Amino acid sequence: MNTERTGGRALAAVFSGHRHPFHLQQFPIPSPGRGEVLVDITCSTICGSDLHTWHGRRQEPVPCVLGHEIVGRIVAFGPGAPQIDLRGEPLLEGDRITWTLAASCGECFFCHRGLPQKCESLFKYGHSAIAPGREFSGGFAECCLLTPGTGIVKLPDTLSDAMAAPANCAVATVAAAFRLAGPVEGATVAILGCGVLGLTAAAMARELGAAEVISCDLDASRRNAALQFGSGRFCEPAGFLPDTRDLTAGRGADLTMEFSGSASAVSAALTATRTGGISVIAGTTTPGGKVEMDPNDLVRRMLTIRGLHNYAPEDLLAAVDFLTRAEGLFPFASLDGGAFPLAEITSAFEAANDRPGRRVSITP
Amino acid sequence: MNTERTGGRALAAVFSGHRHPFHLQQFPIPSPGRGEVLVDITCSTICGSDLHTWHGRRQEPVPCVLGHEIVGRIVAFGPGAPQIDLRGEPLLEGDRITWTLAASCGECFFCHRGLPQKCESLFKYGHSAIAPGREFSGGFAECCLLTPGTGIVKLPDTLSDAMAAPANCAVATVAAAFRLAGPVEGATVAILGCGVLGLTAAAMARELGAAEVISCDLDASRRNAALQFGSGRFCEPAGFLPDTRDLTAGRGADLTMEFSGSASAVSAALTATRTGGISVIAGTTTPGGKVEMDPNDLVRRMLTIRGLHNYAPEDLLAAVDFLTRAEGLFPFASLDGGAFPLAEITSAFEAANDRPGRRVSITP
Repeated sequence: MNTERTGGRALAAVFSGHRHPFHLQQFPIPSPGRGEVLVDITCSTICGSDLHTWHGRRQEPVPCVLGHEIVGRIVAFGPGAPQIDLRGEPLLEGDRITWTLAASCGECFFCHRGLPQKCESLFKYGHSAIAPGREFSGGFAECCLLTPGTGIVKLPDTLSDAMAAPANCAVATVAAAFRLAGPVEGATVAILGCGVLGLTAAAMARELGAAEVISCDLDASRRNAALQFGSGRFCEPAGFLPDTRDLTAGRGADLTMEFSGSASAVSAALTATRTGGISVIAGTTTPGGKVEMDPNDLVRRMLTIRGLHNYAPEDLLAAVDFLTRAEGLFPFASLDGGAFPLAEITSAFEAANDRPGRRVSITP
Repeated sequence: MNTERTGGRALAAVFSGHRHPFHLQQFPIPSPGRGEVLVDITCSTICGSDLHTWHGRRQEPVPCVLGHEIVGRIVAFGPGAPQIDLRGEPLLEGDRITWTLAASCGECFFCHRGLPQKCESLFKYGHSAIAPGREFSGGFAECCLLTPGTGIVKLPDTLSDAMAAPANCAVATVAAAFRLAGPVEGATVAILGCGVLGLTAAAMARELGAAEVISCDLDASRRNAALQFGSGRFCEPAGFLPDTRDLTAGRGADLTMEFSGSASAVSAALTATRTGGISVIAGTTTPGGKVEMDPNDLVRRMLTIRGLHNYAPEDLLAAVDFLTRAEGLFPFASLDGGAFPLAEITSAFEAANDRPGRRVSITP
């Protein structure tokens, strides 16, 4: 952060609701309180859920500062703030970090049950109404104040800002999906949806030792990307349904993963899963179509269906480690949709909207 | 087995399809071949699925000998037949045993993946068309020829035939449901359906250390049985839905288990499960109603849904051990619906039909 800004004021792009223009506003830079860390933001990427909010497909409390896929450098620690990251490495001023989408209390019913993302006093970056002294709570701003209960990960120099920022949401969610799914070594994995999550999932499946990875999307133009990200085959079928004759000698996939957000893809995922297989459903986070399920089929095919929303801190660590290992193996750089300064945030959102399957950065 | 019958002939009740009377017929008693064990049946109970077949609600290959919840005594071993039971205890002629509903090859895709009940060359007792020399393949007969790949469990003397026979299907399926569900210590468990499976599940949940057990059934007359089998509360709600305010401080049940076979109960089970909880669906084994599922709800509530059909040999062992421990704790004897000789099998089926929630025995 510029010394001029320290103790001074910094910019945030305030979102006041669908059809309202972003409003760039200066607020006093807060001094980090107990357990808090002040970070100078270097890059935030626009997630699909930011676009949903911008389009009015889902509601957030307003006015707010959107953005939760964030990279920055530590400026200052409040008293009692964490001195180590999720890996146990020491944190110092100037360290380049990313952090969990959400801060959790660690004490409540859900935190005690391994579901910190459902914490009863959850705070999510980029999802909270701003209040005086609490303006810097999202990514589309010059700085961010990390609240207690946030999991921090120090980033390796080899990982660029634009590559690292999506770790915070898309890649960590995919890591959580594989954690829910269990080991995939030797498995046939079918992935429905070839956006950032689906492509990341293909690469992660391959890296985790899946024997076969089959990607499906209604958009045939995503074929090349799917193949570059580790898929052995691309299906472009009506209703997302992969040809189950291709899957595990006609039995269906050992694991299906739904990242498209389409109800028909959820149905297709269940159909394409083999007897005794598992289907992780993670794509749908807005109200939409329903799915018809046949209990007799569910029972006789002994399916396991797991819904996934967001992730736990360990998944962010797995995501950063995966991206670090994946450098040179999979073309994550090709998902970079370009960078815009904070003052051009509206252009950045328009670009993100026009470039589905890529991540547009805002670099304050 | 009577010495007169050995090397001679024995009776089987042949089922030739819905609306056909059972036909008692004598067949030559087979000599056990490689890996086979000949058993003198002392008791078989009539399972709900036998009733489904009798009523024509589901089709089995005919002519066949129904019955798969069977207890008997070993008469003879074929060459290479198992010399130890699932617990590793030696098997001798005269030993009182029960055995898995199904025999599996141990070598195929599904056997290698922990799903012996989906073996690609599965044989199920009481579910196969008879053939010359292969007539004694079900429970409603004087003897049974166990095929290779059958898991055998020696029974303790404290467990009566009528108590032990349902271990083979109902109780082992419930044990499998708890294996799929994972640890339940301290959990709130809601059980939908209070037939033999649901009551057994209530008792097993309690015995495994569940903090609260809530049973639900549309039939209010099952309240007392539910409470006697370990439920702390009985719900008799429209559409099976337990009052979720009762469940885990209003969050919903940690674990829901569906044993009624009704589609509305499946919907209710999913609704009654807390965020991050698990729902095991095991009741539906006949075609019937469909269930509508909302992917956005599945994702945001992070539900795990697991379909279960039948069980693995380890579950039969768990079932026998549970019934042995449960003696005196839960009134399993009250589920005994009476005994009929083989010659009165039609009366036995009529009695089973008139006594839902109880097990009628046939004692050759």
